[in-house]
Amino acid sequence: MSGALLDKKIVIIGLGLIGGSVARGLAGKCREIVAVGRQEAMLRQALDDGSITSWTTDIAAACKNADLILVAVPSLTVEKTLVAIGHTDAVITDAASVKGEILRAAERVYGQVPPNFVPGHPIAGSEHSGYTASTPRLFNGKKVILTPLADSDASAVALVTALWESLGAEVLTMSVEHHDAVLAATSHLPHLLAFALVDTLSQQGESEEIFRYAAGGFRDFTRIASSDPQMWHDVFMTNGDATVTVLDEYIKDLHRLRKAIQARDSEELMSTFRRAKKSRDKFLEMLSGDTDPA
Amino acid sequence: MSGALLDKKIVIIGLGLIGGSVARGLAGKCREIVAVGRQEAMLRQALDDGSITSWTTDIAAACKNADLILVAVPSLTVEKTLVAIGHTDAVITDAASVKGEILRAAERVYGQVPPNFVPGHPIAGSEHSGYTASTPRLFNGKKVILTPLADSDASAVALVTALWESLGAEVLTMSVEHHDAVLAATSHLPHLLAFALVDTLSQQGESEEIFRYAAGGFRDFTRIASSDPQMWHDVFMTNGDATVTVLDEYIKDLHRLRKAIQARDSEELMSTFRRAKKSRDKFLEMLSGDTDPA
Repeated sequence: MSGALLDKKIVIIGLGLIGGSVARGLAGKCREIVAVGRQEAMLRQALDDGSITSWTTDIAAACKNADLILVAVPSLTVEKTLVAIGHTDAVITDAASVKGEILRAAERVYGQVPPNFVPGHPIAGSEHSGYTASTPRLFNGKKVILTPLADSDASAVALVTALWESLGAEVLTMSVEHHDAVLAATSHLPHLLAFALVDTLSQQGESEEIFRYAAGGFRDFTRIASSDPQMWHDVFMTNGDATVTVLDEYIKDLHRLRKAIQARDSEELMSTFRRAKKSRDKFLEMLSGDTDPA
Repeated sequence: MSGALLDKKIVIIGLGLIGGSVARGLAGKCREIVAVGRQEAMLRQALDDGSITSWTTDIAAACKNADLILVAVPSLTVEKTLVAIGHTDAVITDAASVKGEILRAAERVYGQVPPNFVPGHPIAGSEHSGYTASTPRLFNGKKVILTPLADSDASAVALVTALWESLGAEVLTMSVEHHDAVLAATSHLPHLLAFALVDTLSQQGESEEIFRYAAGGFRDFTRIASSDPQMWHDVFMTNGDATVTVLDEYIKDLHRLRKAIQARDSEELMSTFRRAKKSRDKFLEMLSGDTDPA
């Protein structure tokens, strides 16, 4: 599959955790890898690392004669990045965690979503951010969701698929709406809950004293609260409605459990915890094979 | 310090994750380690493993001539275990996650909390339960909180301290009320939130489809939802009030964030996420050195 990339010029805009990991994973698999970023020191570092073949801070210059452009910037920065790219024959894809808002951004920039624009989202990440946290195996064994439209070019979808498959990912497609609802439930809501818990506790009178007695379970539970604030700010600014929908169901369930605790309702607590443990153990079976921390 | 244990007979009632890990860690450090449990096959396994020197299913028989008795059963089973132990000159301690209810149980059994009863709580655990999940290093580098009363025997406190220190733990003391409030915030609430999230999502129409696209962040966030339902049922039945107090603050914060998302309040979201990330990164510094998963 990765043979499809050998003669290609690939441009990566945004050399953070995702862009950097794509560059490192692609190194040697295509003709050119051009990185565009704002921090020159980091771009030079990537060149030294052999992750890229050249770099620039000029998006338009980078995209000249490109075959594939990966926009790997925070969700709210995608629109101005598309403006800078302008009209192009290259295939464009992105890596944002929300897809509805990205399509609306593309419509605003191009009048309609161009057939060579294939929205994508690698379901892989880390609480660490930036190029220094990137790794060539970040996407290995992970899922990448593409949300092509009815009039997307088949060849564009194939090229984006080849890109992610060359990094060891499994590529799936689904509708934009379904993507945004599913990710609100499994990713956006958990991040919100983790940020909120750490914030709630840090506002308590003796927060240092409280954290002092937290252990490994708390560390894992709040790991995602160390994620990049800008990225998550953008996610909730752009996928707020789907997140609020599932948040409301969650708050309803918290009230049910609160009532059960107050009433010392043994049966309700026991059946909820048993059901949850069973569901999570089933989820782990589905995830089996994915042993990399991500 | 562990020299204090060399000539002692130690009885461990309940050979689950905690009791089993104490036994494995103590092996060879004291005269006798007698385990009491209900599953004979597991007790025989522990004897074969060399974790214990003998076992029985009879609590009273086990405790004869004991120097130290560790009650390592779910919180709601502590009371009937104390009844079975009866009056004894041995030092008694426990490992329950709540302390107020344990003292009330001791009062009900003995009329008042005996000076030789030293309540304790090792801040270590795992989402895996039972003797098969136990490990001799579970408490290494971890904290153990003792909540002795004003009239607790100093020698009893010293012996319980020696027990945990011999397993590599750091022993601290605090009041019962403070323990139950701090643990409600850092342990009981997070477990409730994780159980609730998995349960909320598993009730959704397409729950399998939803879990299919969950990744490593979700796995870590929900790890504690795979914990023993019985143990956590007992925790919320016995530390419900402190948990509801901090849960209410959390729900208030969720409503604040919900409002910010609906209003696309960029500043409120950004400042919350930044504050939370900073607090968690600071918490990690405090935790540094604790690299074992627990």
